[in-house]
Amino acid sequence: MKKVLFLFSALLTIALMSSCNGDGKSASGALSAQSAAEKVYVAPGEYDEFYAFMSGGFSGQVSVYGLPSGRLFKVIPVFSVDGEKGYGFNEETKPLLETSHGFVPWDDAHHPELSQTDGRPDGRWLFINGNNTPRIARIDLRSFETAEIIEIPNSGGNHSSPFVTENSEYVVAGTRFSLPIPQKDVAISSYQENFNGSLSFISLDQEEGHMEVDFQILMPGFDYDLAHAGKGNSHGWMFFTTYNSEQSHTLKEVNASQNDKDFIAAVNWKKAQEYIAAGNFQELPANYHVNRFDENSHMATSEVRNTVRVLIPEDCPGLVYYLPTPKSPHGVDVDPSGEYIIGNGKLNADLTVHSFTKMISAIEQQKFDGEIDGIPVLSFDDVMAGTVSSGGLGPLHTEFDGEGNAYTTFFISSEVVKWKLETWEVLDRIPTYYSVGHLMIPGGDSRHPWGKYMVALNKITKDRYLPTGPELAHSAQLYDISGEKMELLLDFPTIGEPHYAQAIAADIIMPNSLKIYPLEENTHPYVAKVESDARVERDGAEVHVYMTTIRSHFAPDNIEGVKVGDKVYFHVTNLEQDWDVPHGFAVLGANNAELLIMPGQTETLLWEPKEVGVYPFYCTDFCSALHQEMQGYIRVSPEGSNVAISATTGE
Amino acid sequence: MKKVLFLFSALLTIALMSSCNGDGKSASGALSAQSAAEKVYVAPGEYDEFYAFMSGGFSGQVSVYGLPSGRLFKVIPVFSVDGEKGYGFNEETKPLLETSHGFVPWDDAHHPELSQTDGRPDGRWLFINGNNTPRIARIDLRSFETAEIIEIPNSGGNHSSPFVTENSEYVVAGTRFSLPIPQKDVAISSYQENFNGSLSFISLDQEEGHMEVDFQILMPGFDYDLAHAGKGNSHGWMFFTTYNSEQSHTLKEVNASQNDKDFIAAVNWKKAQEYIAAGNFQELPANYHVNRFDENSHMATSEVRNTVRVLIPEDCPGLVYYLPTPKSPHGVDVDPSGEYIIGNGKLNADLTVHSFTKMISAIEQQKFDGEIDGIPVLSFDDVMAGTVSSGGLGPLHTEFDGEGNAYTTFFISSEVVKWKLETWEVLDRIPTYYSVGHLMIPGGDSRHPWGKYMVALNKITKDRYLPTGPELAHSAQLYDISGEKMELLLDFPTIGEPHYAQAIAADIIMPNSLKIYPLEENTHPYVAKVESDARVERDGAEVHVYMTTIRSHFAPDNIEGVKVGDKVYFHVTNLEQDWDVPHGFAVLGANNAELLIMPGQTETLLWEPKEVGVYPFYCTDFCSALHQEMQGYIRVSPEGSNVAISATTGE
Repeated sequence: MKKVLFLFSALLTIALMSSCNGDGKSASGALSAQSAAEKVYVAPGEYDEFYAFMSGGFSGQVSVYGLPSGRLFKVIPVFSVDGEKGYGFNEETKPLLETSHGFVPWDDAHHPELSQTDGRPDGRWLFINGNNTPRIARIDLRSFETAEIIEIPNSGGNHSSPFVTENSEYVVAGTRFSLPIPQKDVAISSYQENFNGSLSFISLDQEEGHMEVDFQILMPGFDYDLAHAGKGNSHGWMFFTTYNSEQSHTLKEVNASQNDKDFIAAVNWKKAQEYIAAGNFQELPANYHVNRFDENSHMATSEVRNTVRVLIPEDCPGLVYYLPTPKSPHGVDVDPSGEYIIGNGKLNADLTVHSFTKMISAIEQQKFDGEIDGIPVLSFDDVMAGTVSSGGLGPLHTEFDGEGNAYTTFFISSEVVKWKLETWEVLDRIPTYYSVGHLMIPGGDSRHPWGKYMVALNKITKDRYLPTGPELAHSAQLYDISGEKMELLLDFPTIGEPHYAQAIAADIIMPNSLKIYPLEENTHPYVAKVESDARVERDGAEVHVYMTTIRSHFAPDNIEGVKVGDKVYFHVTNLEQDWDVPHGFAVLGANNAELLIMPGQTETLLWEPKEVGVYPFYCTDFCSALHQEMQGYIRVSPEGSNVAISATTGE
Repeated sequence: MKKVLFLFSALLTIALMSSCNGDGKSASGALSAQSAAEKVYVAPGEYDEFYAFMSGGFSGQVSVYGLPSGRLFKVIPVFSVDGEKGYGFNEETKPLLETSHGFVPWDDAHHPELSQTDGRPDGRWLFINGNNTPRIARIDLRSFETAEIIEIPNSGGNHSSPFVTENSEYVVAGTRFSLPIPQKDVAISSYQENFNGSLSFISLDQEEGHMEVDFQILMPGFDYDLAHAGKGNSHGWMFFTTYNSEQSHTLKEVNASQNDKDFIAAVNWKKAQEYIAAGNFQELPANYHVNRFDENSHMATSEVRNTVRVLIPEDCPGLVYYLPTPKSPHGVDVDPSGEYIIGNGKLNADLTVHSFTKMISAIEQQKFDGEIDGIPVLSFDDVMAGTVSSGGLGPLHTEFDGEGNAYTTFFISSEVVKWKLETWEVLDRIPTYYSVGHLMIPGGDSRHPWGKYMVALNKITKDRYLPTGPELAHSAQLYDISGEKMELLLDFPTIGEPHYAQAIAADIIMPNSLKIYPLEENTHPYVAKVESDARVERDGAEVHVYMTTIRSHFAPDNIEGVKVGDKVYFHVTNLEQDWDVPHGFAVLGANNAELLIMPGQTETLLWEPKEVGVYPFYCTDFCSALHQEMQGYIRVSPEGSNVAISATTGE
C-alpha cells in the first residue's frame, strides 16, 4: 500500500510540475487553485490575520470580515434599524437615530475610517459617514457597537467623510450636494446665486471619543466628493476633491462634466484653529443632533445643538487653496510620506500627482492663478509632481503598500494598476470582476500600511456567483500583493455595497475586546440585578416590567393586570455573566422587534396591546437545552377592568 | 532549476506522507488543512455546487449561501424590514407585513422548507415560518423574493412549521404555545381549562403557490414543537412533536419536564380532507391576513380572512393519534423510505424510532392506551421500531444521506452521531463547536437526499472566530460525509441564527432564475415606461412623482411646487433592461429608507417634508462612471405658497 501511495505521490508531483512553474503559478499567470485555496483557508479553530471593516453602502451598516478568509463575523447596525438586534426598535437605541428631520431609520454609509495615533490605525474607534441625512457615526471597537452619531448641519450628501487626521484630532465632512445655507425656499435655477458648499471639521475628545462640530468652512457651490488628511510633513492639512465646478443643478452627467479641470481643495486646519481662537468666525444658528450611547446605563441620549461656527475663506487668508486637477477628480489619496497628493480624475486615463512641497512653495511665493470666492487658485504646473500614464480608464481610488508602491482602481477598464511612487512607472495590472470602485490595503491610507493583501470592492457582480434573481450581492476580490505581481486569490460577496473598507491587524483589536457587560456596573434606571428585584409597576397608563432573564426562565413569567391601551415597557436584564450567552425577548403581535440582550445588559421593548387575551412571550436566542421552555404569558384585560397588577414566576 | 524543484517536490511528498495516511488525513483523524482547503475552495469565476437556504432565526430573514464555499450570496428580507432593499419601507412591500395586530416589522424565522414534487425538492418555492406573530412566508425561487405571507390564526409561537408534504399539497403550522382559542381575558392560572393548541394545514395552489388555511385541528393545550410529513407509504400523514404535556404555564424549565414521555401527534390529513368534504367541521370566526406580492404590478396586497374551518378530534375518529415518546421530544424526522419516524427526546440520551407500519397495525387493531380529549394514545411498545443507543446527550434533529444512514445532533454533548437505519448501530461521531441545534444535509429530509455534505448549525460560537465584542455571530460547520467517517471541512459564520437550513443542487434553480423584470410587463399603476412619461401630478395634499431612472440621470431631476405638509410619493421606474443594473433612490431627511429598484421595476417612496428648503435626492447604487452626477433637487415651499408644480430635466 505504501508503495502504491509513493508511486501515486510521485506521479502527482510530476503532474503538478508539468502544469506549474516554481512559484505555484500556471503558465497563464493565474495562481493554481491549490495554492490560492491554501492562502485563503483559515482552518476551523484558527483565526484570521486581519479584521476588515466594510461599509454596507446603501445598507447603512458596517460589516466585519476576516482576512484572508473573507468570512463575515458581524454586521454592526449603525444608521439603519435592525430588528435582529432590536437596534432602533428598543428604547435604548432609538435616540441614536434622531435627527433634525426626526427619526431616520436608514442611511447610506460609505467610508469606514479607523482612528489613528501617529498616523497608524490604533484600534480604538471606527468612524463612518451617513451620506443621505448627513451624519458621522463612531463605533467603539471594544464592544463593536455604535457609540455615537453626530448630525452635520448645512450639508447635503455627506460623501467626503469621515476621513481622520493623523492623531484623530478631527474627522471631516464635506457636502457633496450644495444647498442654500441656511435652507430657504428659492428656485433651484438660482443655484449659482443661492447654493453653497460646506466643509466640516468634527473634533474628537481623545478620552471618550465624543464628537463635536468644531467649525465649518463655507465654500463655493461645487460638489465635494472625497477627502484625505495630510500626514508627516503635510499633517495639519486636509484635502478634498471637487466636481461640478460648473455649478450645474440639472442633468449633471452632462452639465457637470464640461470643465477640463476641477479642483482639490487644500485646507490648513491648524490655520483654521488660529482663526477660531481669534474669534474670526461667524456663529450661525443651526439645528443638529448629537446622539451618544452610554455603556453603563446601556442607553442613548439625543441632544440638540443650536449654533455652528463658520469660517468664510475670504475673511481667512491662508485657510483654503484650490489645486486644479483633471477631470472631475473622485478620490484624493495621500501617500504614506505625506508628500504626494494623488487626484484620481474619474473621466481621465492618467493620474495626477501633486507635490505638497511644491504646493507650500507656490503658496509662499503667492503664485496664484486667480481666486474663487476668496480662495486662491494655484497653478497646475506649479503643484504637479508627476503624471501616471496608466493605460487604464476611469481612475477612482489609490492606496499604498508601504513599500513605495501605489495601487489605483480603474472603474471603466475594470482593473487595478500597481505603480511606483516618484518614478510614476506602471509595474503591474490585474483585472477585476467587475467595475471596481474603492480598493483597500490593510492600513493602506495610513503612514504605515501592512500591505500583504489588496481587496477590490466591485460594483458589478453578474456571473461571479450562483445567481439569486435580479438582485445580486456586490462583490469583493482578495489579491495577494506580497510579490511583484498581484495575484487574485478569492471572490467573496458582501453585505450591501462594500463601498470602502479598512483593515487592521487582529492583534491590535483582540486584547481590548469586551466579552460581557459587568452587571455591577449596570446603571440602567430600570435594571433588576437579581431575580428578587423582578416586578411590575403601573404608572398611569404605563406599565413597567422589571424583568430578569437567566438560563432558562424569565422572572416574572406570568403577568396580569395589563389593559388594552396601556404602554407596556419590558425592561429585560440579562443576568448571565458568561461570554456568548445572550437572551432574546419577543411578545406576540408587537409592532416592534425583539430584544437581544447581552450578558449584564438591560434593554427595553415597548408593547401596546390592542386586544384582550393572553399572549405568550419567549426567549428568541437558543440559550440552553431548555430554551424551548423559556417562555411566559401576559394577560391583557379590557380598559377599565379591575384585574390587579401581578407578576409571578413558578407559582 | 527543474532538478531543484523535483527534489523539493519529492521531499514535500515524503513530508506529506509522514504526516498523512492514504486518505489525506493525519494520524489524529483530522483532515489535513491542505485537503480541506481544496474541498471548500471555489475558485474565482466558478460556481458552488449547492444553494443552501438558511433561516436567519431571530433576524427574521432567509440567507442564501453557496456550498461548499460557505459564501453568503443574498439576504432575502422576509419578516423583518430591511432598509437596504426598502423592504417594508416602500409602498409596494408594506402590505406584506400587515397582520391582525397591525404592521409587524420583525419576526423570528426558523425553518426554511423547499417545495417538493414526488418527495424531491423541486426548486419552485421556499417556505419559512414566522415564530412570534404566527405566519408562513413563501419565497419565489425565480426572483429570490418574498412572494406571499399568510398569518396563522389561533396560534402562538408558530414553531412546528412550515414542513411540506410530498407533493407540496400542504405546509403546516402548529402552535408552540397554547392559547385561549378564541382569545379571551382569562386568568393564566386557568390554563388547563381554557388553553388549547392548534395544528394548521395550509393548502398550496400548485400553479401560483398561493396559500390558504385549509383547516385547523383543535388540540389539547400542549406545546407543539416540530413536525415532518410522511413520505412513501406514510404519505398522507403529518407528525408533530409535543412537550409540556404537563400543561404547565409557568417555570416550564421545571414544570414542563416532569413527564417521562410526551407525544408525537400523528395526523391523517387525507382523513381530514374527507371530514372537510363531508362538512364535519366548525367554521369559527377568525381574523388573519393573506398578503401577496404581484410580480407584474410589483405591488403587494393584504387581504383579511374572517373564518377558519376547525376539526375537533373527538368528532373525527381516525384523524389524530398520539405516539408516546420520551422525553420532551424536539425534532421529529422521517427517513427517506417513510417507514421510520424518529423522535429526538431532548432530555434523553437515546433516540426513539417509531415504525409507521407498526403504527398502522396498532391503529387497525384498535390497540390504545387510553385517549386525551378524544385522541387515542397508542402504546409505546406497539409502535416502537428500535432505539439508538447513541452515547450522546440531548438529541435534537436527524437528517439522512440516502445511503441508509442517519445523522443526529446532540446539543448537550455537542456532537453529530452517524447511525444506521434498521440496525440502529452507531457508525461514527464527530464534535461540533459548539452546541449544535439543527443539522442539514442537501435534500436530507426528502425522499432522495443528495448527501455529500452535512452542515451543523451551532448555537455557541465563543472562540471560533476573531472576537467582535459581547455579541458573536452564530456559526455553521461544514462536514464531508461522502466517506465512512465524517470530516470537518470549514467553520463559517452566519447571519442571525442559522436555525435550520435546506440545500438544493444549483442546477435545479439556475435555469429558472430571473435576470430582469420585463418593462413591457410592468403594470404598476404609477409606472413611467419612457422618459417622456415622467411628470409630477398634484392630487390635493398628495404629490405623485412619476420618475424614471437610467444611467446616469433621473427624470425629472428638478422638482418644484411641493409644500410643507404634502405627502410626496416618488414612483421610480428603472428603465434599464440589463442584468445587475439596479438604481437606488434616496432623499435627504426622509423618515424612510431608500428604494433599490431592479431593472424594469417600479418602487414608491413616501416623503413628508417638514421644513422649507431645497433638498437633494440621488442614486444610492453605484451604477456608472457618472453615478456621482446622478442627482437632482426638490424644492419645498411653505404651506399656502403659490409656487406651481414643475418637473424638469436638463433645462
